[in-house]
Amino acid sequence: MRKEMEELVGLDRERTMIGHINSILSWDQETFMPEAAVEERSDQLAFIEGLAHEKLTNPRIGELLFALGSTSKDRAGDPSLPPVERAYLRVLRREYDQETKLPASLVTEYAKAQSLSQAAWIEARKANDFKAFEPHLRSMIDFNRKIAACLDPARKPYDVLLDLYEPGTDEASIAAVFSELRAGLVALIERINGKPQIDDAVLRRRCRKETQEAAGSFLMDELAFDATRGRLDASAHPFTTTLGADDVRITTRYDEDFFPSNLFSVIHETGHALYELGIDTGKEFRNTALSQAVSMGIHESQSRFWENTVGRSGEFWKPRYARLKEILAPALDGVSFDDFRRAVNRVSPSLIRVEADEVTYCLHVILRFELEAALVNGKLDPAGLPAAWNDKMKSFLGVVPATDALGCMQDVHWATGLFGYFPSYALGTMYASQFTQAMKAGDPAAASALASGDCRKPLEWLRANIHRRGAEMFPPELCLEVTGAALTPRAFLAYLDRKYSEIYGL
Amino acid sequence: MRKEMEELVGLDRERTMIGHINSILSWDQETFMPEAAVEERSDQLAFIEGLAHEKLTNPRIGELLFALGSTSKDRAGDPSLPPVERAYLRVLRREYDQETKLPASLVTEYAKAQSLSQAAWIEARKANDFKAFEPHLRSMIDFNRKIAACLDPARKPYDVLLDLYEPGTDEASIAAVFSELRAGLVALIERINGKPQIDDAVLRRRCRKETQEAAGSFLMDELAFDATRGRLDASAHPFTTTLGADDVRITTRYDEDFFPSNLFSVIHETGHALYELGIDTGKEFRNTALSQAVSMGIHESQSRFWENTVGRSGEFWKPRYARLKEILAPALDGVSFDDFRRAVNRVSPSLIRVEADEVTYCLHVILRFELEAALVNGKLDPAGLPAAWNDKMKSFLGVVPATDALGCMQDVHWATGLFGYFPSYALGTMYASQFTQAMKAGDPAAASALASGDCRKPLEWLRANIHRRGAEMFPPELCLEVTGAALTPRAFLAYLDRKYSEIYGL
Repeated sequence: MRKEMEELVGLDRERTMIGHINSILSWDQETFMPEAAVEERSDQLAFIEGLAHEKLTNPRIGELLFALGSTSKDRAGDPSLPPVERAYLRVLRREYDQETKLPASLVTEYAKAQSLSQAAWIEARKANDFKAFEPHLRSMIDFNRKIAACLDPARKPYDVLLDLYEPGTDEASIAAVFSELRAGLVALIERINGKPQIDDAVLRRRCRKETQEAAGSFLMDELAFDATRGRLDASAHPFTTTLGADDVRITTRYDEDFFPSNLFSVIHETGHALYELGIDTGKEFRNTALSQAVSMGIHESQSRFWENTVGRSGEFWKPRYARLKEILAPALDGVSFDDFRRAVNRVSPSLIRVEADEVTYCLHVILRFELEAALVNGKLDPAGLPAAWNDKMKSFLGVVPATDALGCMQDVHWATGLFGYFPSYALGTMYASQFTQAMKAGDPAAASALASGDCRKPLEWLRANIHRRGAEMFPPELCLEVTGAALTPRAFLAYLDRKYSEIYGL
Repeated sequence: MRKEMEELVGLDRERTMIGHINSILSWDQETFMPEAAVEERSDQLAFIEGLAHEKLTNPRIGELLFALGSTSKDRAGDPSLPPVERAYLRVLRREYDQETKLPASLVTEYAKAQSLSQAAWIEARKANDFKAFEPHLRSMIDFNRKIAACLDPARKPYDVLLDLYEPGTDEASIAAVFSELRAGLVALIERINGKPQIDDAVLRRRCRKETQEAAGSFLMDELAFDATRGRLDASAHPFTTTLGADDVRITTRYDEDFFPSNLFSVIHETGHALYELGIDTGKEFRNTALSQAVSMGIHESQSRFWENTVGRSGEFWKPRYARLKEILAPALDGVSFDDFRRAVNRVSPSLIRVEADEVTYCLHVILRFELEAALVNGKLDPAGLPAAWNDKMKSFLGVVPATDALGCMQDVHWATGLFGYFPSYALGTMYASQFTQAMKAGDPAAASALASGDCRKPLEWLRANIHRRGAEMFPPELCLEVTGAALTPRAFLAYLDRKYSEIYGL
C-alpha cells in the first residue's frame, strides 16, 4: 500500500470511529436513555456530527484522493492501483464530494428546517391537517432540489437524490423495473381477492412482552446471529445500528396484542445485522468507507430475504414451530402448523405501508416513488399531493384513506427531507428474490438447506457473495456479478406466484 | 459576566460534554456491550480521552484564566470578581494545571504501564503470586512519584496525590483524624467481640435476580430518586456515572445467595446519584468544572449517609419492611423486623474490605492509607508489602489472610496506580456522621423525618447545604461551613456507640 493510501485510510478510520460513537449515543437514546436527558443528548449528538463533518471534509483527504489519482467521481483512482484500492477510492470520493460540495450555510439551514418540519408533521398528522404541513413539505422539496443542484447540476434532481441511496441507478431504470413489478402485483392481488380470505385471528391472542422476549433470542440463535457481537433490545421503532465492526445491535417492539410484529421485526433486523457483521474487507480496510454496505437497497435485500423468503416460509417454521408454541404458550395453543403458516402470509390490501403484507408492500413503495419523483422534478405541486395519493391508492390497491393522516402523512420520510430513499424498500425485495434464485442455481447445498429450514448454508452463501466485499461494487454491478443479470422483478413475481398459488389455492 | 469568562465557560462546557460522551461509552461497556466489542471500544474511549485532553489543555484556557486574574492555584481570580466566579476559576485552574503540567510522554507511558499492571494483577491474584505483581506495583509507585513531582515538586509526593482526590487535605491532617478513629473503632470492636454474635443466616436464603430487581426500583423510589433523570442496571461492580446533568445512572449486582448485596449497593449508589443530580450551580455554570462534586470524600459521605446512617437504620426499614418482605418473598418469610434489622448490622472482623461491615470498614481503609503513604514516601519497599499488610491486619482487626490474594492484592486500586484515593472512603464515612449531626441540630423537621424513616426532608437538607453548590468549596471549607467545625471522628464514633450498644447490648 502506498503511503498516501495508508494516510488516507488512517483519516478515514478516525471518521468511521466517530460515526460509531454517534451510533452508541443514538442507540442509547432510542433504548435506555431517561427522558429528561433528551436535550443534552441532542447537543452531544450535534457535537459528534460536527466532528464527523470536520474529519470528512479535512482538505488533506482531498489532497490524498487527488494524489492517488481520484480526480472526480468518474475517475476513481490511478489505474495502476489494485482493484480493491480503486474501489475504495471510488466510495470515499463519493462521500467526500457529498460532504464538501454543500455550502455550510445550506447544511445549517437545512438542519433547522428539517427539525421544524418534523415537529410540524407530528402535529399536522395528529390534527389531520395537511395544509399545516404543506409549507414544510414544500421547503423540504426545495432544499432537496438545492442539494441536488450543488451535488450535480448536470443531472435531474431526483436522479441525484436516488444516487445517494442507490449508487448507479436513476429514475428511468427504476421506473422501468417498477412498471413491470406493479403490473405483476396488481394481477396477483386480483387473483387473491377472488379467493376466500385467510383468518388470522389467532395472531391477535394476547402475549406478554416477557414471553415475546424469549422468542426474539430464539430466532436470533436460529439465524446464527453471533451473540458475542451484538444484542437485542426494545425501542419504539425497530432498527439495526452498527457501533463497531464487532458490535451490531438490533431492536424490536412488543405489541402484546399482535406478537408477529415482534417475530418478524427480529428476523428482519437480524437480516440487516447479519449483513453488517458479514462485511469483511480484510484488515487493511477494516472500519473504512469500504467496509460498509453497498446501498440501502442491498441492505434491504438482506433483511427481506430473512424476513420473507425464509422467515415466512413453511420450510423455516416446520422444524421450529413446536418450539415456538412452547415459547409463546399459551398464545398458539391448538393452532396447527398450517394455520400458523397461512395466517402469517395473509394478503390484504391496506392503507399503511409498514403494516402491509409481502404482496401488497411494494405497491406502497411504487406509489411513493412516483409521487416523490413528480414532487422533486416539479411536476406535482405539494398542494396536489393528497389527491394524487388517494388516486394512486385507489388504482394500485383499491383502497382510499379516509384521512391524510392515514394517507400521504403516514410516513416520516418526506417530513425529514428524505426523497429518493423509498425505492430502496422495493429494490431490496426484488434483489432478495433474484439473489435467492442465484443461490439455488449455484449452490445445491444452500438450496437444499433452504428447503429444510437450515439457515447456516444460505448465510454462508450470502457472506461469500454479498456481505464480505463491503461497498466494493455499486448495486447494479453486484447484481450482475452475483446473478448474471440486471435487476428484474421476475424472480420476485415468480416466487410470489408459486407461494401464493399454494396458499390461496389460485 | 465578563466576555473572557463567557468564552472560558464555553470552552469548559465542550470539555464537560466530551466527558459525558466518555461516560456514555463506559457505561455501555460495563452494562450492555457485547464481549467481542471490547477492543474497538477501548480505541473509541482512547480517542475520546485524547479529545478531552486536547480541549482541556487548549492554551486559550490558560490565557483566559490569566486574563481573569487566575495566575496560579493560590490566586484563583481577580478579587473584583463575584465569589462564585472566583470559586469556579479556582477549580478550573486546578484541573488545567493538573492536565498541563504532565509531559505527554509521561502520560502515554503511564497509560501503557497501567494497563500492563492491571493485567498482571489479575493473573497474580489468580495465582496468588505477589512476586509476579511486585515489579508492576513498583512501577505504579514510581510513576505516581514522578507525577507528584511534576505537579508540585515542593510538597511530599503523597500529599500531592491526596490533594488530587481531596483538595485541601494532606497526610498529617488525615493521619491525626485516622489515629483517633482507629483507637475508637478498635475499642468498640473489642466490646462487640465480647458479646454473643448475631445470626445472619436468613440473609443467605436464595433470592432470584428477577425478584431482587423489583427491590432495587422500590428502594430508589423510596429515596426520591427521579426516574426521568437516571436509571438502574446491572454490572460486575456497582457504580454511579454521570452522562449529563440530567442523566445519572447507577448499577448494582445480583448475588442470588446474598440479596443484601443488591439492597445496599442500590442505596449506596443512589446516594452518589442523588448528589450528582442535586448539583445546581445555576444556568451560568451548568455543565462546567463548578457543577461537579466537591471531592471523592464528600461524594462518599453521601453514599454512606444513605447506605448506613439511613439504609441500615431501624427507622428506615420499620415503615418499609412489610413491603420488602412482599417483594423478596419468600426469602424473608418468618423473619421478624428486628431479626432483619440486627442481621444487616452484624459486625465481624473479616479479610475483605468491600464485604466489611460499618464498624470494621474504616480500619481496612486506615490500613491502606498507612501502607500507601509509606510506599509512596519511600519508607516501605514494595517487597515488604505482604508482611506489613498482614501485621497491620493482625493488629487492627485480629485476622490474618491466608494468602496475598485475600490480603494485599485484593483491591484493584494500587494495581491501576491509584494512590491517595483510599482515604476518601473513611473520610466520607466520618463526614456523613458529622453532617447528620449538623442536620439534626439545625433542622428539627429533617431530624424528625429521619426518626420516622422519611427520606425527603433529609434530602432537601443535603441539597441545600451540600449538593446545590457543586465544587464551590474544598472539603475542609465545606465541613466548617456546614458543621461549624473541622472534620473529627467523634460524631461517627458516637453514632456507632449509640447504635451498636443497642444492637449488641453492650
